Amino acid sequence: MSSQHRPLADPRQDEYRILHEADLRDYLAGVPAVAARLGGAPAAWSISEVGDGNLNLVFIVKGTSGGVAVKQALPYVRLVGESWPLPLSRSHYEYLALTHQARLAPGLVPAVLHHNEPLALVVMELLEPHIIMRKGLVAGTRYPRFVDDITTFLARTLYLSSDLAVPAAEKKDGIAAFAGNHALCKITEDLIFTDPYRVAEQNRWTQPWLDATAAAFREDLDLHVAISQLKLKFLNAPEALIHGDLHTGSIMVTESATIVIDPEFAFYGPMGFDIGAVIGNLLMAYLASVGHERAPGDRRDFEAWVLETVENVWTEFARKFLELWRTQAGGDAYPKTLFAGDAGAVRLDAERQAYMERLFSDTMGFAAAKIIRRILGLAHNIDFELIEDPKRRAICEARSLRLARAMMVDAASFRTIGAVTAAAQEVREWQPDFAK
Amino acid sequence: MSSQHRPLADPRQDEYRILHEADLRDYLAGVPAVAARLGGAPAAWSISEVGDGNLNLVFIVKGTSGGVAVKQALPYVRLVGESWPLPLSRSHYEYLALTHQARLAPGLVPAVLHHNEPLALVVMELLEPHIIMRKGLVAGTRYPRFVDDITTFLARTLYLSSDLAVPAAEKKDGIAAFAGNHALCKITEDLIFTDPYRVAEQNRWTQPWLDATAAAFREDLDLHVAISQLKLKFLNAPEALIHGDLHTGSIMVTESATIVIDPEFAFYGPMGFDIGAVIGNLLMAYLASVGHERAPGDRRDFEAWVLETVENVWTEFARKFLELWRTQAGGDAYPKTLFAGDAGAVRLDAERQAYMERLFSDTMGFAAAKIIRRILGLAHNIDFELIEDPKRRAICEARSLRLARAMMVDAASFRTIGAVTAAAQEVREWQPDFAK
Repeated sequence: MSSQHRPLADPRQDEYRILHEADLRDYLAGVPAVAARLGGAPAAWSISEVGDGNLNLVFIVKGTSGGVAVKQALPYVRLVGESWPLPLSRSHYEYLALTHQARLAPGLVPAVLHHNEPLALVVMELLEPHIIMRKGLVAGTRYPRFVDDITTFLARTLYLSSDLAVPAAEKKDGIAAFAGNHALCKITEDLIFTDPYRVAEQNRWTQPWLDATAAAFREDLDLHVAISQLKLKFLNAPEALIHGDLHTGSIMVTESATIVIDPEFAFYGPMGFDIGAVIGNLLMAYLASVGHERAPGDRRDFEAWVLETVENVWTEFARKFLELWRTQAGGDAYPKTLFAGDAGAVRLDAERQAYMERLFSDTMGFAAAKIIRRILGLAHNIDFELIEDPKRRAICEARSLRLARAMMVDAASFRTIGAVTAAAQEVREWQPDFAK
Repeated sequence: MSSQHRPLADPRQDEYRILHEADLRDYLAGVPAVAARLGGAPAAWSISEVGDGNLNLVFIVKGTSGGVAVKQALPYVRLVGESWPLPLSRSHYEYLALTHQARLAPGLVPAVLHHNEPLALVVMELLEPHIIMRKGLVAGTRYPRFVDDITTFLARTLYLSSDLAVPAAEKKDGIAAFAGNHALCKITEDLIFTDPYRVAEQNRWTQPWLDATAAAFREDLDLHVAISQLKLKFLNAPEALIHGDLHTGSIMVTESATIVIDPEFAFYGPMGFDIGAVIGNLLMAYLASVGHERAPGDRRDFEAWVLETVENVWTEFARKFLELWRTQAGGDAYPKTLFAGDAGAVRLDAERQAYMERLFSDTMGFAAAKIIRRILGLAHNIDFELIEDPKRRAICEARSLRLARAMMVDAASFRTIGAVTAAAQEVREWQPDFAK
């Protein structure tokens, strides 16, 4: 809380209201750490609202010496409007998650400069010249740092908050600290795990080409069982403090840096949900890529890089996660004393591999769920949306749905990440009936 | 809290101290609801300490018109002493669990008459002529109400607190409400899931006969992997509000009634842990029975009843759980809208069966863990301890360990409860090497 920093004791300062430009300027002028970073006279600061997410206001504020990003939660879902209220407390959970993540994965989340809980406001360092990774992927840009950074983020935030690393009492405290973020969890439960598979007012898809597939998905009981099992896992498996919304729109990048933003969906959930979010969104980038071609085949190198990245994300994540497990096993799970001696070490390592296989299976299921929701549900993404020709877009989407359905229902065929990228390559050449 | 009922505003009333007889008498005299139930002059009440559990003080107080049971938590583990501190907050969680259970499974838990949180004190109805079920089983008594009552308790408390019945937000609130009970969970994590499989000062077993088996279990890496997977599930699966210590010493019975007591280990955990506790303890009663024979074969009818009870506990539990699922599916898991129409109903029912198979597998693992800890760990039970001839006791224990190991490691061979009772019958006739 910032009250100690502000000389102006305006009683309205901490009362929630939506901050518009003038109000925000006055507010930030009263926060010395922020004012100092911006530099110059407050009246000269430039302020622009740039939020393109689904939930919040985001301002970029620049002064003579630097800039900050200001995120304010609205009491409703921005994408939908006041008819869909959403608690401001998500800002508290985002702040809490940013704090944890900064400790677990230093340098991979934005530095928080100021937080005001009643205002549901977080002021962070301005990331420049970073862009939202999804935009870069649409443009066909490769990010050489990405694999190393995101796998460090995933391995460290997931492993180091799990029962493998943390004593059970501390972990239970963590679960309780995030349990109140249930309104955000409910969005995921509904929009990812339920609505795309049934008639729901907010669903949309590229019509008319995907009408038949959307209808088939609503009738597909194999898929409904699979998504319900994933939903049960999302409800019932507080394995680690997960980001909860780790798509490529929650990652800011340059060619030499990667920063994970927007953890307002954070809670203790299944690890595979975060890893699956990254992989599912990369698979969408891959299958959408042909839709952004200017000349046939002009993005083939980019696409090869995306597939290689899919493979490397899993293998590097698994390598780092196992390395942490071998060196920082401070949790109550798999106590070392039960695996003493050489034979014990060998057996524990075999069990670690089996653990990773189970996590891989979860990850593929969640990756598939993240793909389907972006094509048949409420929230879509620019990977597809920026493909102007709707039929061309529908072809990319139909391929993605075909891959996702197989990953979810026929999980036994996807035992390795190589099997997934091979299937992705195959489906890229598949023509849906409407395209023939 | 009771302060409003007590006319004597003694500031010491709510300050924790261990209540001895005179103090307890004064205290209860100041609680009108309790004093009225007891009847007569406080000086005439009989008070006796009867606690035979491992953790707490338990008093039976009787007056001219009725009686009460008073349970007070000690700031340490009674079985071990002051060297092992344990938070008084467990009394709060016990009270909370009793309240929930009374709502979910009316008539199957003791009525709470008074609770004082600072004193870690719960005053309950006196259960008369109920006895601890384990004592009855040692005596060879059959309980015709038991299957119906315990399966109602299990099905209702587990189902009705799960994601199948309860909206996700409410369930997360429940998880948070019990998350602070981690010191009691830690006892389970250590004493059930860890210590029996390693050298631990507090372990004990029937020497010298079980020395070799105890040593073998400490080296058995198949078993160590299996128990570690169960421990991970205990740490990571808040499926329902579980009792957490549902052995036959936590159940009071008459031939016509069953009451579940002592839920101080309650938290949101895996359902199979409670069901497994009941089944594991019945299997111990079965395999200990021959040790209590007065004439060869004189307990055969009792033993047949126990095995039948093992089978009926699972099948009746499963039947009632499924019945609840079909009629009271108010939770966020397996939304009905994804299983519409006749085909959907059939498919959902098939998935319900698959869910029960997964739960059965968990249950068998936890049942086995509960057996092993009672023979190789700190806390033993009178099923075995009252067999006076230690070699005869060791034979019963060795058979139980053999069955439990198979259930835990060779889970694939135990797909039905009939397979478990068949294996139990077989192992009853097995002679360990030391008995030949």
